[in-house]
Amino acid sequence: MNAEIIAVGSELLLGQIANTNAQFISEYLAEMGVDVYYHTVVGDNEQRLLDALNVAEKRASLIILTGGLGPTKDDLTKETVSKRLGIPLIYDEPSLNFIKGYYQKVNKEMPQNNKKQALVLEGAHVLKNDYGMAPGMALNYHDHYYLLLPGPPSEMKPMVLNYVVPYVKEQLKMEEMIKSRVLRFFGIGESKLEEDILDLLEMQKNPTIAPLAKSGEVTLRLTAKGKERNEIDENLDHLEQKIHARVGNYFYGYGETTLPIELMKKLTESKQTIAAAESLTGGLFSQWISAISGASSVFKGSIVSYSNEVKMTVLGVPTDLIEKHGVVSEQCAKAMAEKVRKISNTDIGISFTGVAGPEALEDHEPGTVYVGLSIRNQQTEAFSLKLSGTREMIRRYSANYGCYILLKRLFKKS
Amino acid sequence: MNAEIIAVGSELLLGQIANTNAQFISEYLAEMGVDVYYHTVVGDNEQRLLDALNVAEKRASLIILTGGLGPTKDDLTKETVSKRLGIPLIYDEPSLNFIKGYYQKVNKEMPQNNKKQALVLEGAHVLKNDYGMAPGMALNYHDHYYLLLPGPPSEMKPMVLNYVVPYVKEQLKMEEMIKSRVLRFFGIGESKLEEDILDLLEMQKNPTIAPLAKSGEVTLRLTAKGKERNEIDENLDHLEQKIHARVGNYFYGYGETTLPIELMKKLTESKQTIAAAESLTGGLFSQWISAISGASSVFKGSIVSYSNEVKMTVLGVPTDLIEKHGVVSEQCAKAMAEKVRKISNTDIGISFTGVAGPEALEDHEPGTVYVGLSIRNQQTEAFSLKLSGTREMIRRYSANYGCYILLKRLFKKS
Repeated sequence: MNAEIIAVGSELLLGQIANTNAQFISEYLAEMGVDVYYHTVVGDNEQRLLDALNVAEKRASLIILTGGLGPTKDDLTKETVSKRLGIPLIYDEPSLNFIKGYYQKVNKEMPQNNKKQALVLEGAHVLKNDYGMAPGMALNYHDHYYLLLPGPPSEMKPMVLNYVVPYVKEQLKMEEMIKSRVLRFFGIGESKLEEDILDLLEMQKNPTIAPLAKSGEVTLRLTAKGKERNEIDENLDHLEQKIHARVGNYFYGYGETTLPIELMKKLTESKQTIAAAESLTGGLFSQWISAISGASSVFKGSIVSYSNEVKMTVLGVPTDLIEKHGVVSEQCAKAMAEKVRKISNTDIGISFTGVAGPEALEDHEPGTVYVGLSIRNQQTEAFSLKLSGTREMIRRYSANYGCYILLKRLFKKS
Repeated sequence: MNAEIIAVGSELLLGQIANTNAQFISEYLAEMGVDVYYHTVVGDNEQRLLDALNVAEKRASLIILTGGLGPTKDDLTKETVSKRLGIPLIYDEPSLNFIKGYYQKVNKEMPQNNKKQALVLEGAHVLKNDYGMAPGMALNYHDHYYLLLPGPPSEMKPMVLNYVVPYVKEQLKMEEMIKSRVLRFFGIGESKLEEDILDLLEMQKNPTIAPLAKSGEVTLRLTAKGKERNEIDENLDHLEQKIHARVGNYFYGYGETTLPIELMKKLTESKQTIAAAESLTGGLFSQWISAISGASSVFKGSIVSYSNEVKMTVLGVPTDLIEKHGVVSEQCAKAMAEKVRKISNTDIGISFTGVAGPEALEDHEPGTVYVGLSIRNQQTEAFSLKLSGTREMIRRYSANYGCYILLKRLFKKS
C-alpha cells in the first residue's frame, strides 16, 4: 500500500499557511509502514481537484484528502469525489443531529448551509469529528482507498489518531511492525558524516538510514521493519553500535531533543549550577537554557557583556588583559568564564566572545569565536572556532557549541 | 503565467518537516500576480521525480523545484532535470571557487562529493547562493520556465528575495502593477482590530485588506492594483490614513519588521544607549536586540538575574525590598531597571520580572509580569501585565511589550 495526500485549499496556494496537515499524517503513515510517495496541494477549484484525483489514482492506492468539508460555497471536496466516483451524497443522521443539537444548545438559529456538513458519500465509513461539525469519511472503491478529512488541524489531528490509524491498520492487516530511532550529531558536517558511514549507507536495506542536516546539526533516522519487536530492536541496536564506532564522538541525543535540553538534563542530574557571560551571543545561550521549564534549579543568571565597558566594570575582566589580548581572545574567554562563575557563585561558568559579523572586530574576521569554560576545581579552558555564515548562524552555532563542549566535559567526568 | 512548486525530499514525505518552502515562495508569487495552481512533494527518487515533472509540465508554465541540490547521493534534482530535458551539467567556476575557498578558510579538507554542488544545467542563469554552497538555476526551455532552488530555508529565502523575484518580474514584463503594504500592530487583538475597521473591511475591493494574527501581533496587508505607480500609492496612502485614524495607537511599523528592530532604529536615531535586567525573560530581550547588526552602538549589555541571589548581589536590588514586596512586583521591576541603568551607565534601563510558568511564584499566577523602565532624567515607571498562554508565549509577549512601551515613550518625547 502506498499513499498520496491531497490538501485542498486556496489559502495554501496563496502562502497564507503551510501544509502542516500533510506532515502530521505522513508521520503516522510512516510509523505504520505505509509509503507516502507524493503530497499534492490544490485550490478550491472543482476542475483542478478532479485533475489531481486523476493523477493520484494512477500512482497511489490510498488517497487521503484534507480540507474542503466545511459549510461554505468554497468547500467542494466531497462533492468533487462524489462526481469523480459517481457515488451520491446522502445525509448522515447522527452528524445532522449533532449539528442541530449544537445550535439548540447555544440558542442560535442554524444557518442553512451548515446542514451541508452532514452530507457523506453513500456507503462510506463515517469518521466521527470530535472537535467540529464536518465528519470524515473512509471509502474503499475499486482498487483505491479514499479518506476524506477536515482541514482544521484541531479537528483533523484527533480524527487521525482516534479513527484513521486504527482504520488503516485494519485494512492493512499489518503483520509487519516498523520502528524508527533518530540519532542526533553536532560538530560534524553532513557530507563528512556520510563519508564516514558510506558503506553502511550503501548497504542499507533493513534497517534503513536517512541523514538530515538542519541548522548546524545532522540527524540519522534508522528505521527497521520486522515481525517481532525484539528482532527490530536488536537490528536497530546493532546498526547504532556500528554508527557509534565511527562517529559516536559527535553524538549527543535521541529523537526530538536539543543540545540545551540535553545539557539541562545532565546538569539537573548531577546537581550542578551554571552562569554565563555572553558577548557575541548576546543572551542566546541564557535564553535557550531559561526557556526550559525548571531551569531555575540549575541556571542562576548571566551577564551579557556586550560592550567592553560592561566586560570590565560588571564582569571585572582586567583592563590590561583586554588591552594586551583584545576581547576576541582565548584569554578574555577564560577570564569571562571564571569571573561570571565567581560573581554568581556557581559550579560552572561558561563564556562566549568573538565576532558575529558582518563587520570585523579587532582585525578578526566574522566567525572567529572563543568559548570559555570554568568548572569548579578544574583548569579553565578555552575553545577556538572558525565559523562561516550569517550573523544569526554564527551566534546559534556558538551557543550550541557551548552546550556541546560542556556536555562532553560533564560526561567525561562522570 | 501559472506556477507549480515541486519540493523534493524524502524527509517531507516522512513527516519530519513541513513544506514551508512552498508557503514562502507562494506568498511572493501571489504578490507578483502569478497564480500557483499546485504544490507537489516528491521523495529523493529519480523515477518519481521524472513523473512529477511530466505531470507539472502539462499543467504549469513556471516550475519551481526546491531541495536536492546538496552534496550527497540523495540529492538528485538537477541530475533528474538534466535527464528530463536532455541538457548536460557543467561546472560553474565561480561556485566551484567559492566552495574550495570555504574549505581553505576553515582549514579543512574538502570532501570530494562537495564539488558536485557547483554543477549547473548548461545555459542556465545561475542564481548566487549567498548563504550556502549550492547555487540556484533559472532556465527557459521550450514553453516552460524552470527554477531550481536549494532546500534549506536559510539559503532558499534570500535567493528568492534577491534573485528569483526580480527574475520572474522581468520574464513577466508585467503591465498591471500590484503593490502591497503591510501594517503591523501590537497590543490589540485580531477581533477587536477587525471590529474597529469593520466598514473598511466590508467595502474593500481595491485596495484589499487582509488581516493576519500571529504570536501576539496583528498585521494588515493592503494590496492595490493599477497601471500607474502614483495611483496605486495614493490609494494605499488614502486607505492607510483611514486605518490610522481608528487603530493608529497600536501601529508600530511596516512590512517585515519586528518590535526589536523598530526599537533599535529609534534608539540609534536618537543616540540613546540601553541595558536590560531580565528575570522571567531569561535573556530573550537581549538576544533579540543583539541579533540586530550594529547593536553594539546602542546596546551595552544586560544582567540576566534568574536567581534572587543574582538580583541582590550582581544587580544590587535591596534585600529588604525583595523581602517586603517580592520579586514579582512593581517595586522590584523599578529597582531592577534603575540598577541596571546605573551599573551599565546607559540612558535607559529596562527590566522584566514575573512568572513564566508553569508553576506559580510567590503566590502569583503564571502570566503575572512587571516591566520596569528607567530613563535618564525621568520618573521610573513600571507596567503590569496579566498574560495567558504557555511559558514561551508569556516570555515572548513580555519582551515584545517591553519594546512596544519603550517605543511609545521615545516617540512621545520626540
